[in-house]
Amino acid sequence: MKGNFSSDNSSGACAPIMEAIVKANAGAVPSYGSDEWNAKLHAKACDLFEKEVAVFPVTTGTAANALALSQLAPPYGTVYCYEAAHIVTDECGAPEFFTGGAKLTGFPSEDGKILPEQVKKALAFADEMGVHHVKPGAVSITQATEWGTLYSNREVSDLAALARSRQLRLHMDGARFANALATLNCSPAEATWKSGVDVLSLGATKNGALCAEAVIFFDVSLAQDFDRRRKRAGHLWSKFRFLSAQLLAYLEDDLWLRNARHANRAARRLAEGLKPLSEVKLLHPVDANELFVLLPQPLLGALERDFKFYTWPLYASETGVAVRLVTSYATRDEEVDAFVGAVKQWGRR
Amino acid sequence: MKGNFSSDNSSGACAPIMEAIVKANAGAVPSYGSDEWNAKLHAKACDLFEKEVAVFPVTTGTAANALALSQLAPPYGTVYCYEAAHIVTDECGAPEFFTGGAKLTGFPSEDGKILPEQVKKALAFADEMGVHHVKPGAVSITQATEWGTLYSNREVSDLAALARSRQLRLHMDGARFANALATLNCSPAEATWKSGVDVLSLGATKNGALCAEAVIFFDVSLAQDFDRRRKRAGHLWSKFRFLSAQLLAYLEDDLWLRNARHANRAARRLAEGLKPLSEVKLLHPVDANELFVLLPQPLLGALERDFKFYTWPLYASETGVAVRLVTSYATRDEEVDAFVGAVKQWGRR
Amino acid sequence: MKGNFSSDNSSGACAPIMEAIVKANAGAVPSYGSDEWNAKLHAKACDLFEKEVAVFPVTTGTAANALALSQLAPPYGTVYCYEAAHIVTDECGAPEFFTGGAKLTGFPSEDGKILPEQVKKALAFADEMGVHHVKPGAVSITQATEWGTLYSNREVSDLAALARSRQLRLHMDGARFANALATLNCSPAEATWKSGVDVLSLGATKNGALCAEAVIFFDVSLAQDFDRRRKRAGHLWSKFRFLSAQLLAYLEDDLWLRNARHANRAARRLAEGLKPLSEVKLLHPVDANELFVLLPQPLLGALERDFKFYTWPLYASETGVAVRLVTSYATRDEEVDAFVGAVKQWGRR
Amino acid sequence: MKGNFSSDNSSGACAPIMEAIVKANAGAVPSYGSDEWNAKLHAKACDLFEKEVAVFPVTTGTAANALALSQLAPPYGTVYCYEAAHIVTDECGAPEFFTGGAKLTGFPSEDGKILPEQVKKALAFADEMGVHHVKPGAVSITQATEWGTLYSNREVSDLAALARSRQLRLHMDGARFANALATLNCSPAEATWKSGVDVLSLGATKNGALCAEAVIFFDVSLAQDFDRRRKRAGHLWSKFRFLSAQLLAYLEDDLWLRNARHANRAARRLAEGLKPLSEVKLLHPVDANELFVLLPQPLLGALERDFKFYTWPLYASETGVAVRLVTSYATRDEEVDAFVGAVKQWGRR
Repeated sequence: MKGNFSSDNSSGACAPIMEAIVKANAGAVPSYGSDEWNAKLHAKACDLFEKEVAVFPVTTGTAANALALSQLAPPYGTVYCYEAAHIVTDECGAPEFFTGGAKLTGFPSEDGKILPEQVKKALAFADEMGVHHVKPGAVSITQATEWGTLYSNREVSDLAALARSRQLRLHMDGARFANALATLNCSPAEATWKSGVDVLSLGATKNGALCAEAVIFFDVSLAQDFDRRRKRAGHLWSKFRFLSAQLLAYLEDDLWLRNARHANRAARRLAEGLKPLSEVKLLHPVDANELFVLLPQPLLGALERDFKFYTWPLYASETGVAVRLVTSYATRDEEVDAFVGAVKQWGRR
Repeated sequence: MKGNFSSDNSSGACAPIMEAIVKANAGAVPSYGSDEWNAKLHAKACDLFEKEVAVFPVTTGTAANALALSQLAPPYGTVYCYEAAHIVTDECGAPEFFTGGAKLTGFPSEDGKILPEQVKKALAFADEMGVHHVKPGAVSITQATEWGTLYSNREVSDLAALARSRQLRLHMDGARFANALATLNCSPAEATWKSGVDVLSLGATKNGALCAEAVIFFDVSLAQDFDRRRKRAGHLWSKFRFLSAQLLAYLEDDLWLRNARHANRAARRLAEGLKPLSEVKLLHPVDANELFVLLPQPLLGALERDFKFYTWPLYASETGVAVRLVTSYATRDEEVDAFVGAVKQWGRR
Repeated sequence: MKGNFSSDNSSGACAPIMEAIVKANAGAVPSYGSDEWNAKLHAKACDLFEKEVAVFPVTTGTAANALALSQLAPPYGTVYCYEAAHIVTDECGAPEFFTGGAKLTGFPSEDGKILPEQVKKALAFADEMGVHHVKPGAVSITQATEWGTLYSNREVSDLAALARSRQLRLHMDGARFANALATLNCSPAEATWKSGVDVLSLGATKNGALCAEAVIFFDVSLAQDFDRRRKRAGHLWSKFRFLSAQLLAYLEDDLWLRNARHANRAARRLAEGLKPLSEVKLLHPVDANELFVLLPQPLLGALERDFKFYTWPLYASETGVAVRLVTSYATRDEEVDAFVGAVKQWGRR
Repeated sequence: MKGNFSSDNSSGACAPIMEAIVKANAGAVPSYGSDEWNAKLHAKACDLFEKEVAVFPVTTGTAANALALSQLAPPYGTVYCYEAAHIVTDECGAPEFFTGGAKLTGFPSEDGKILPEQVKKALAFADEMGVHHVKPGAVSITQATEWGTLYSNREVSDLAALARSRQLRLHMDGARFANALATLNCSPAEATWKSGVDVLSLGATKNGALCAEAVIFFDVSLAQDFDRRRKRAGHLWSKFRFLSAQLLAYLEDDLWLRNARHANRAARRLAEGLKPLSEVKLLHPVDANELFVLLPQPLLGALERDFKFYTWPLYASETGVAVRLVTSYATRDEEVDAFVGAVKQWGRR
């Protein structure tokens, strides 16, 4: 194996987070979130986001997204989003489950980003249909997107303004939020609530945690009863300190950004290495830590011998195969260079 | 008012059905379905469909569809259907509610009919995604479709064969099944289970009943516990005889077909009257009792003074407005002719 | 058959209601509740209850109760009620379904009435358990109760005061509300919102309608989005006029009270006839139109030959059998007298 | 602080499990359960339980229970259990949520154990009520019980036999299964499937894991689609190895039993120390690692200064306070002896 680009969750936990877990294992500690790490996490998050926020650690991104949406959309409502968003295709119906049956209304998109016009049209349709149609409930966007692209803060705030004008809330699936932030090069506050985001699913697992995500509400009043929702979904840990300790370590000393910058750099290195090569074609701008690349079938076979990655469903063109290449905090330059080298070599064959 | 084409449920109950209701009102009768009308309805349905069937009367088409789908798709499953099917856009999320959160996966279509290729592609995607994606659960089609067109029996059985090959069941939303049957000119059995339909939502309300639909299972074993689903949805009437009596009258003496033929004839008369006129454009073949017509905006204004109908959302072209015209068992020729006359007159203005 | 005491829903529709249905069947009328009967019903209800109310007609009592509770209790909440209330034992889990999984916390009771002390104790437990326990959501009482007894208005307002002090709403299952009102001999307003009731499931079917119940909100703001809940449960009729016409006739000219008084009178006549007889024992005061009677097994056999009624589960004593006898708007004195006579005759055998 | 008896989840992870986690952190590993630890865990579980089993690691006991029950009871069903079982009072409605609205039917019990007679009576009631009542769905028992007592294997198999005779499945909430097993002194197989248990929620967190429980199906065919249920509940970890590694370490080298024996021994030592003292009264036999003790109020105050434990809701007698004392794998003899000493000293004051 010369390189693993299969997923950022193939890597384990990064050293500082594993150390934090081990360190938190001393002595008896109150359970269910009454631990000191959780208190510090809250303080840290408020500090980072420059605002009183409510932070709810959970284990998986699916749980974070589905719990967040269940707080925003009524069972008879709908969530507007990208038609191939993670919440639509990769969570086995978790949003529908947690909301009690709300619908996801998905819009097509080339680059994974939805537009205010799409939401506006759907709202007009809902208005015309009245009681026969599901009620507009929330807007959800993914940052970085499912295609490794980014919304600009302006694009986010345009969607937020529209949502707000209709009393809809804006959710951001930030499974790779740190990767987005590293590229946007703005403050966490600017990338979220200052651009109109109401709730953030903050990912950490893909970016170096063992198993930790957090739902962050920027309007604390919006979090009412959210603790009960988390509990009844089986997502309230008893030995909670091990969850909050991970997230605390993640946010301290810029660890999240350092990890994300590493992963993004590796992705850019890979993109720059591949761009000049006629054998492959980048399908999207590389703004975070994911590349989507079109390959000829024989090259795929050659690469699969030495590298791990996934071919990607649905979007394969007729003359090739689409593959996804993901870098992480643990990706080494040698892996990147070996991949580029292998493509080159195949071209010369 | 010179004509009402707003909906087939603007009409009241047709005379034979109202008479059946009044007649059923004599004396004390066992409740909750243990009445003689219900027994006769079962016998009549078995006879008509040439098979032992299970019949469950309910009040609304939304209830019939959502209950039927809840029997076919697990909460973590999906139902493949047309993206603008009634179950998607007009039932306020009832299928999601009744199934406990299953998803509807909608396919685009010009004429409201979905194709085996679309289902096949979605199944391939689901296979590739595995546990991360909702489980293929059922296929649902509408006959007559939301655009007043028809699946041929062959088209139905092609979809059914694909579904069956994957252990998926085929549901037919037959809100206007009688209108379809009147045009298909085949037996009820041929239009349903002989073409592979597993469950039919049989509409009666739009075609002359006061408030009666039925869920019909062609494989009786598939109906297990369906009575409990109906009860816990609040759809088990206590004075049940008034529901079964309607459906019995509907199916006796070909009333359902006579009503449907009347409505279809009126629709065809309307279509034939409008076709030669350059002012309007028929958007779909007229196979049942609905027309979708493109009009210039000023003509719309003129027609709205004397006729009732709905403009239709989403599909308006840039140079006109789409309207829906529905005929029913109660539509009179004068209404049709007045409408055609009004369009002609406007053309001559 | 000399008498039918099986249920008040064995009777059909009373004449004025059937006439109203037939009368409403003239011409084309807007569907889904935009009919004139519905507007009149709203006006009539506001007038009767001396207050602006929101009225939502539905078909069954189960639907009325479950929809009402879904508006009051969150999915992670609980409804406090009598442990053998209709909502607990007779609705196949409809409240759990409609609320999205809320719990019913039932209290024991001799006469079907719950006490503020029971609610208070449960609230204290919930407080102590915090996030681990379901959230207190609502209180639900049945008037007349499942045992044919009545809450006094004072008892209702004591429960309401407690509920209000904890931001809980009070729901009244009034499947036999008219029977209760006829005995309470107070105004509809006094029996409901003036005693603190927030939402009433108003029954009509058992008291002479064909199929009509209504959910009535006394605080109109509490009804937000209730129309969507009704729609997505499949309980929005298309030919809505036939539902509102029934309820309008029911409330006009005191029909509801006249029917209820008739049924209550028959129940009292039966109770007075049976009381002196040593063969049978009345298990509860007879305040409405239901009697619960303890019989020796052989008498049961004798009575079942000529009368229809149900033996009653769970509460049979060791030395006899409990039966329920229900009277309705259609019960005749001869039926009552025949039953009393049959018991007397058996005593003399 | 001289001793902590608040909960077995106040302790952290035991050393072998923390080591296993750290060790599993090497290199890139396939995610979502395709790791080698998970394969070994499956093999180990089959070996321990002497049978092909299906093992599904999850994070919390609430998730394990609710997921297990959702596989056994339909949404329109009910689960028979102890009225104050953890699933009823401590999971914020998770079973109702995961099952899609099934009901928990709780029976009273002095010692937390339910009896076949109670289930039988409830089944008879359900039979009599038919479609109006929820469908019997499953039986759930807790081993060790919520009161630290044990079902004998015979008591379990009596319940199982009854359940089986009605096609109901038997679920065991084994949050403290290892503690039970340590006392029962039989094989894991005997304590579960050989006694008729169909599904076990196997706890590990309270007994030394960081965050790990498992749902174990003894009939593999019963686990169909369970992986999708877990995924859509957000309980499928991406870095799954950290979950399976914990459970593997837990079951290897008898760690689970060694930890449990330690905790049970501490509980017995505490019980034996307290039994002779007239100041306190043990409320239940001490079969596992929990004691429930009645204290006079002033003693409570004295003990709370030096020890951590919870007073226990609902069951406080008039002349004292009930407290729960829990021991764990980490409880030291000095803590136990200090507690006994403190009670003695107070008695001598």
